[in-house]
Amino acid sequence: MMASSTPSSIEHTMLAASEQLQVPSNITKFKIGLCQLSVTSEKNQNLACARNSIKAAVECGARLVVLPEMWNCPYSNDYFAKFAEDFENEDASPTFSMLSEAACSHGITIVGGSVPESSDGQLYNTSCVFGPDGKLKAKHRKIHLFDIEIPGDITFKESDFFAAGDKPTIVDTDVGRIGIGICHDIRFPELAALYRAKGAHIICYPGAFNISTGELLWEVMQRARAADNQSGEIIATSGHEETVVVAEIDYSKIELQRKGLPLDKQKRADIYLS
Amino acid sequence: MMASSTPSSIEHTMLAASEQLQVPSNITKFKIGLCQLSVTSEKNQNLACARNSIKAAVECGARLVVLPEMWNCPYSNDYFAKFAEDFENEDASPTFSMLSEAACSHGITIVGGSVPESSDGQLYNTSCVFGPDGKLKAKHRKIHLFDIEIPGDITFKESDFFAAGDKPTIVDTDVGRIGIGICHDIRFPELAALYRAKGAHIICYPGAFNISTGELLWEVMQRARAADNQSGEIIATSGHEETVVVAEIDYSKIELQRKGLPLDKQKRADIYLS
Repeated sequence: MMASSTPSSIEHTMLAASEQLQVPSNITKFKIGLCQLSVTSEKNQNLACARNSIKAAVECGARLVVLPEMWNCPYSNDYFAKFAEDFENEDASPTFSMLSEAACSHGITIVGGSVPESSDGQLYNTSCVFGPDGKLKAKHRKIHLFDIEIPGDITFKESDFFAAGDKPTIVDTDVGRIGIGICHDIRFPELAALYRAKGAHIICYPGAFNISTGELLWEVMQRARAADNQSGEIIATSGHEETVVVAEIDYSKIELQRKGLPLDKQKRADIYLS
Repeated sequence: MMASSTPSSIEHTMLAASEQLQVPSNITKFKIGLCQLSVTSEKNQNLACARNSIKAAVECGARLVVLPEMWNCPYSNDYFAKFAEDFENEDASPTFSMLSEAACSHGITIVGGSVPESSDGQLYNTSCVFGPDGKLKAKHRKIHLFDIEIPGDITFKESDFFAAGDKPTIVDTDVGRIGIGICHDIRFPELAALYRAKGAHIICYPGAFNISTGELLWEVMQRARAADNQSGEIIATSGHEETVVVAEIDYSKIELQRKGLPLDKQKRADIYLS
């Protein structure tokens, strides 16, 4: 979560979920590309940068490309409204157009990180998922807005600028069923558990965070959500620089692990509500 | 979780929970002592060793002392039934007697790790909590038994030997409200969330694990449960040797953190059930 408008690195993660993996019939292994981007105050430049990054990921073999949170706009109230786009009006949305074109021309699935969305007079922090046909498959509005006030350290109230989404987002794609969370959404194990229960193969959490309070926590939370859902192995990572991380997902490995230690069957839902 | 009967180190952890901290009126800071013990096949020796360890923790100022999982008995089916005690029959239970005496004579609270309990023809993996008056305050039977089968790596089925507990355990003590989980119980965020919702100040997870599969996961899970409940700072740790770790708990720090980032208010329980 960026609290400043200066260019800076933005990071994200993904993890696989779902106890009863119903692996897509045509795929058990594939490559994911994670694009880590620097953000400027020039939207066109951000779009071009993201487009190049997607291309680089595809050239490394990625069939699913994930962008970070708020990649087309500085993380600052000075920019949100100005940079926001209305995705219902596709032709007037350069971000929508670029992601759609990139997905279609490369024949890949894109989880478009997040960008400011304007809709019905509200702003949302929104992630768009596009399929290989270039069509919008799902739209996730950040559910848990990041409101923090620690005197002398950090004060940021995302809910001053954005309205919160009010539903989980799970979408069937060419590479499996994907649950979407945005940054602070990762702190709520209930959301990940819901996605797993609904058969998600992957949970994508595009994120952006400040270095002072977020760095350590972000890694812990990624590993927490992954370990809760039995996919705790870190298979690829990077520093803070602008980069593309490509790694292979092998659903059969997760399947084996869950067969060996069936956490989902061991859960005692009858007890947790007491 | 030990899968062998050889002496080995046993570890555990604790973390603070509860969004709305109703700090005990007489205490905001106090010391916890964690006893890490080696286990032999001589129960009396294990009792004496634990008794010494409790004393050492008290001498370092601990007002709450926590023992590890299965500290009086090798973690093996060859020993569980033989070492099991019936806590209803206090006078015939040397483990009960020792813990009660230690709590009373030192005027402290003890979370007695866990030991095999026999009751109504069943065996349980059970943690007993004693107050400064030497009385048994609560008894937690491990809810989630550790059944794992990973070919070529580890096969262990705790449910072959033990019956599972069927309720969460939360107990008011001199040093605050404590939720109890035993080892594998830590893998279920729902249990920790329940304790937090019920106002636990601390969650104690006595644990024992095999080095091959447990070490990395144990740390991740501790930090996961702690971070989920906003007490993610590691304030003390140790290696695998027999040792006493004493550290100060300061409830006011957790209170500050939760005031600054009120995760509990940010939760969207209406959404997770959808």
